[in-house]
Amino acid sequence: MGDSLTEFRTEPTLPAPRARCGTEPRHGAGAPEGRGPIGTQRDSRPAPPEGHEAVMLLDRARTEVDPVLRAALGSLPGPMRRIARYHFGWEHADGSPAEGGAGKAIRPALVLAAAAALGGSEARAGAVRAAAAVELVHNFTLLHDDVMDRDATRRHRPTAWTVFGDEGAILAGDTLQALALRLLAQDPHPAAPAAAALLADCVVELCAGQYADTALERRGPADVTLDEVLAMAEAKTGALLGSACAIGGLYAGAGDADVAALDAFGREAGLAFQLIDDVIGIWGDPRRTGKPVGADLAARKKSLPVVAAFASGTPASAELAELYARPSEKEDLEHIAQTVERAGGRDWAQGQAADRMARAMQQLARAVPDPEAAGGLLALAEFVTRRSS
Amino acid sequence: MGDSLTEFRTEPTLPAPRARCGTEPRHGAGAPEGRGPIGTQRDSRPAPPEGHEAVMLLDRARTEVDPVLRAALGSLPGPMRRIARYHFGWEHADGSPAEGGAGKAIRPALVLAAAAALGGSEARAGAVRAAAAVELVHNFTLLHDDVMDRDATRRHRPTAWTVFGDEGAILAGDTLQALALRLLAQDPHPAAPAAAALLADCVVELCAGQYADTALERRGPADVTLDEVLAMAEAKTGALLGSACAIGGLYAGAGDADVAALDAFGREAGLAFQLIDDVIGIWGDPRRTGKPVGADLAARKKSLPVVAAFASGTPASAELAELYARPSEKEDLEHIAQTVERAGGRDWAQGQAADRMARAMQQLARAVPDPEAAGGLLALAEFVTRRSS
Repeated sequence: MGDSLTEFRTEPTLPAPRARCGTEPRHGAGAPEGRGPIGTQRDSRPAPPEGHEAVMLLDRARTEVDPVLRAALGSLPGPMRRIARYHFGWEHADGSPAEGGAGKAIRPALVLAAAAALGGSEARAGAVRAAAAVELVHNFTLLHDDVMDRDATRRHRPTAWTVFGDEGAILAGDTLQALALRLLAQDPHPAAPAAAALLADCVVELCAGQYADTALERRGPADVTLDEVLAMAEAKTGALLGSACAIGGLYAGAGDADVAALDAFGREAGLAFQLIDDVIGIWGDPRRTGKPVGADLAARKKSLPVVAAFASGTPASAELAELYARPSEKEDLEHIAQTVERAGGRDWAQGQAADRMARAMQQLARAVPDPEAAGGLLALAEFVTRRSS
Repeated sequence: MGDSLTEFRTEPTLPAPRARCGTEPRHGAGAPEGRGPIGTQRDSRPAPPEGHEAVMLLDRARTEVDPVLRAALGSLPGPMRRIARYHFGWEHADGSPAEGGAGKAIRPALVLAAAAALGGSEARAGAVRAAAAVELVHNFTLLHDDVMDRDATRRHRPTAWTVFGDEGAILAGDTLQALALRLLAQDPHPAAPAAAALLADCVVELCAGQYADTALERRGPADVTLDEVLAMAEAKTGALLGSACAIGGLYAGAGDADVAALDAFGREAGLAFQLIDDVIGIWGDPRRTGKPVGADLAARKKSLPVVAAFASGTPASAELAELYARPSEKEDLEHIAQTVERAGGRDWAQGQAADRMARAMQQLARAVPDPEAAGGLLALAEFVTRRSS
């Protein structure tokens, strides 16, 4: 299972959910004037400006959040600091400085975009610390998930546990969770306690999702239902994107209903992302993802398209059951991928992703009725799910 | 390394540091009138009432904190709830209810006693949630430490990872950390944010201590210095006891200096405990500890008495080096224990423990000059280190 938005795959795979979006006129037509170059209409054509806006938002988020993250990591005792910095891509294994690789900062960008959407630039500026906290939680879960999943590569580099041992990765992860909640505990903003509670709840959900994932992996693929994998993916991936948006809303002083809608927006977009990520994990380009294509198949993971293929009841699904039961060899992967596709796994995942994005748009319209104000969140959601490039 | 105060060993091994305590007259003579039965003088004779007071405080803490803990665990999703309840001793592996076994609640008792010492019963009542948070952090670290140390038994039962797998124990631990910080985030008490920050800092220190422990275990016992093991033990064991006392102080509205002194009191008492725990881990009674005697020796752990023995430069330490280099067999353990003792490891540990307790008393006198008010904390520290029984 592709488990994060840490790195982006770059193939466009999601059909734009335009018909569904049409039910929400504010978003169907709502190009944020003046955000794209020269007043381009967002939905009137395939839109490079949206991708640009998202990249700009991500860059800005990274620039704003990085100093907070670096200060937080800098406060750690030596070995924990070193492991955390390695994981963030700021240091090589030998402790020498490294360039970048800390991921695309999608979650901090969502926090800041949500705060800006409902509270303008002042709310945005007040939410930087919370954005860093969300990124710390994300990275804590990556460190632990990699240990449990025995994933050896992340962001094109050996995972922390392969370099520093399981203990190092587990303890650095524990430490990042503590740093996240410390950032919020020390944040004088009136929204900080509610944000901390929400983020802690999210951690509980993330853990439950990861546990469900490992439990599902132990069962036969034919025994796993689509509902189960979708629920697991929502907990593992959707929850933190939802929380990021909700926390941004809290920092803008949003009411419960808007915070809940922002949460739902992030969840649905996160699920759309996960579906696409799983698709690209089977059929995508390894040079562009940092993760070998077919790795999920080689590991016999029950990713969303695979479970859909198993559930299809087609002749191809029976064939897939046979293939999944055999020991994996590299030359089989292409054939397995084709079989998942013939069983309808790819189409189902892409259709589901479009549905989820449509639902995300509806929730966004509920929380942020002004299309101009919603532009940043929309651009980020589209960027994540590659609808627009 | 005996790694927690979760279960108590029951052999009296620590000589009372009376001479040193004498430098702090308030504690040398300060029997908390009316706390022991019929005004007994604490320092005038070996004092069963002190043990009784501690037991009472522990029972009361457990009674007050349990409902908060049970509610917090009850809010978890199914599998995480089950693992956490199992770990707390409230359920058997099959999910049926179990009786007790959740440990002695020393940390919650310290939080409450510190709050009471400086703020009376009102402060004490306000600190129950924080006391539960500290207990959750403690149990989070136990779950993770057991995974890393491959410890198979805790509180007389199989550890969580042996029952629910590494993932289950890691994720349940992550979840308990989140619950702890959520409790504080949702606590309207004005001290809650500072307590949350302090507790998060403590988690960082606990993790660094555990990492140091695992790193030390990989080095040859003769290459490890006493300062290193003492620093590690302070981080692993002292930090959370110190934080418990400091948090209690925060909930009583104590100033920075008093909070720091309470922290130091807990740290020193924690180190005294660890020294005694390590002594009992080598020479104690397994029926009374829930942990087989000699287990640390069998695992070739560099517990405090062992490192002291190695550092002694005696003929016995050379002999010990030879014994530690051989593969362990059960019949060797008694002989190894004798060798550690002949090399002075036992005496050193007991002397250090007495020193640490003396320092703890000094810090306590600084934070809580009124001996009557300090009685609860004193009784708990003495109980923990078995000075009084």
